[in-house]
Amino acid sequence: MELKNVIAREAAKIDQLMREDISELESKGFDPLLIEILEYALFVGGKRVRPLLTILSARFCGCSDEGVYRLAAAFEYLHAASLIHDDVIDGAAERRGAAPVHEKFGLTAAILTGDFLLSFAMERVSRFGGAASLAIFCNATSGMVDGEYRQLRNARNLDQSEDDYFSVIMGKTALLIGAACEIGAVYGGGDDELRGRLQTYGVNLGCAFQIIDDLLDYQGDPNRTGKSVGNDLGEGKMTLPLIYALQRADATDRAQLLSIVSDERQRAEKVAEVSALIDKYHGFDDAREKAEATGKRAMEALSGIGDETAPVEKAALLELCAYVLNRDK
Amino acid sequence: MELKNVIAREAAKIDQLMREDISELESKGFDPLLIEILEYALFVGGKRVRPLLTILSARFCGCSDEGVYRLAAAFEYLHAASLIHDDVIDGAAERRGAAPVHEKFGLTAAILTGDFLLSFAMERVSRFGGAASLAIFCNATSGMVDGEYRQLRNARNLDQSEDDYFSVIMGKTALLIGAACEIGAVYGGGDDELRGRLQTYGVNLGCAFQIIDDLLDYQGDPNRTGKSVGNDLGEGKMTLPLIYALQRADATDRAQLLSIVSDERQRAEKVAEVSALIDKYHGFDDAREKAEATGKRAMEALSGIGDETAPVEKAALLELCAYVLNRDK
Repeated sequence: MELKNVIAREAAKIDQLMREDISELESKGFDPLLIEILEYALFVGGKRVRPLLTILSARFCGCSDEGVYRLAAAFEYLHAASLIHDDVIDGAAERRGAAPVHEKFGLTAAILTGDFLLSFAMERVSRFGGAASLAIFCNATSGMVDGEYRQLRNARNLDQSEDDYFSVIMGKTALLIGAACEIGAVYGGGDDELRGRLQTYGVNLGCAFQIIDDLLDYQGDPNRTGKSVGNDLGEGKMTLPLIYALQRADATDRAQLLSIVSDERQRAEKVAEVSALIDKYHGFDDAREKAEATGKRAMEALSGIGDETAPVEKAALLELCAYVLNRDK
Repeated sequence: MELKNVIAREAAKIDQLMREDISELESKGFDPLLIEILEYALFVGGKRVRPLLTILSARFCGCSDEGVYRLAAAFEYLHAASLIHDDVIDGAAERRGAAPVHEKFGLTAAILTGDFLLSFAMERVSRFGGAASLAIFCNATSGMVDGEYRQLRNARNLDQSEDDYFSVIMGKTALLIGAACEIGAVYGGGDDELRGRLQTYGVNLGCAFQIIDDLLDYQGDPNRTGKSVGNDLGEGKMTLPLIYALQRADATDRAQLLSIVSDERQRAEKVAEVSALIDKYHGFDDAREKAEATGKRAMEALSGIGDETAPVEKAALLELCAYVLNRDK
């Protein structure tokens, strides 16, 4: 089956299950406004990639139990919580073409709904995945916050290294994707080696995903991505292409880049100029190369396993890597 | 030993343990700004009553294990998380005489630190208390969010009943205090009856605490409470004294109360007038009576148990009730 179809089929099952969860909250008497906001925040779109990874990883380890969907959905709850709080932090005016929760329902509702989803996610990981899974999950959520702090700190550091960048994206994105895979493996009864391999796969997939995301922020077609170009620069976020350019630029170009990057107004107005300078120093090409090498590491983590025992899941996991690297939105 | 001394001794042990937790985070390489904010948010004062209840409940059930402190501290982490997010929501300018986290470190840091503490608390409840404790804990955190939503909704409802009020304070305050006791009982190996009794004790103690808190908001001495008078009214929060007055006032007084309560400027300016009207209809007296009856229910939940097996803990738990009812700050 084509990956696109696998994603669509599993996403439909996850959506169905999340609707059941919300109905259950409703029947327990939770506040109607909370229910309304949960529906708004959870069904605004999205491919459900994180829960899909949990499901594929569990099956990769030989588990055919349908209960894994309940565990997997927790990743979608956590993801929604972090998007809601991130949008507050970034003062975002749009999320997938719609108003973010804080714009539509207010700051109070956004903070509270994020808190609710975070604790709801944890309760479900503990209930359906046990203590070992919750420990992995919490490690990832702590990492997410730590990654955001690093990003805050790095925003004031104009001399960042590739390592600084990777420590941010590990926390922000990759640890959680690694956790989605590892928790699936734990649920599926995979041994330590399988757990480790799937976690490595997920972490590298997550890094590749984030590098491509950061590339699309400069190079994407707004009609495809649904986002305007240069958001990261505007917010003062230093991503890999710019880090490479700053490392390599001659004195004149470096001075010009630094003058733009350290001034909020220039950052918003001079996206094209920054892009041209990044391009001049091969920042985009080399970031793409890095993403491809990272994606390759993800695929290599699975080499020699699963070909006979889980050929469908293995193909899907490998194809996901290719999809992440080639996406234009 | 006097309750004051028990509180001081246990609070010192909990503080010590929290400092060790933070050192551990530091040595794991968490971002220095996160560490700084955690220290700021966790050691701004506070009597550590929630963890104390966990410890006393565990000992009440016969547990002398020192490990209970690690579990108990989770309640302080959760409490700090909720204060940080609440201060953002309320736009608070002060917390225990100091700047709240969002004022001192910014909105981003406040949201992130709250998220971190929430997931840190859950990880520790799961690790030191197991899945049963985490389920109780998450039930309380969901209830907290639900209570806030009810409060939002009720703020627009000028015809509230005592039940509406209790459903808000159950979520906001009492369920969590009940959970602190119940999780202590679970840790201490208490049977279902003991668990239930300690949970009932905690829930009623929490309700009594909140009613007194709401009374102090009108009647407290700012030099003792550290808070100005009439905050709740200013924020449009309908608490028990006002609910009683609205239920009982004659047509003229009711119209006057409603006119003030539904207008933001009048709410801020006419605290004294509202207080006089509440007093006229015995709103304060009856709210205090309700608090006392609720506190009595807390004490009755423990009647006939623990007198021989845990006399010190029982005395402390009973004294806590008296303390909550008689406090002036």
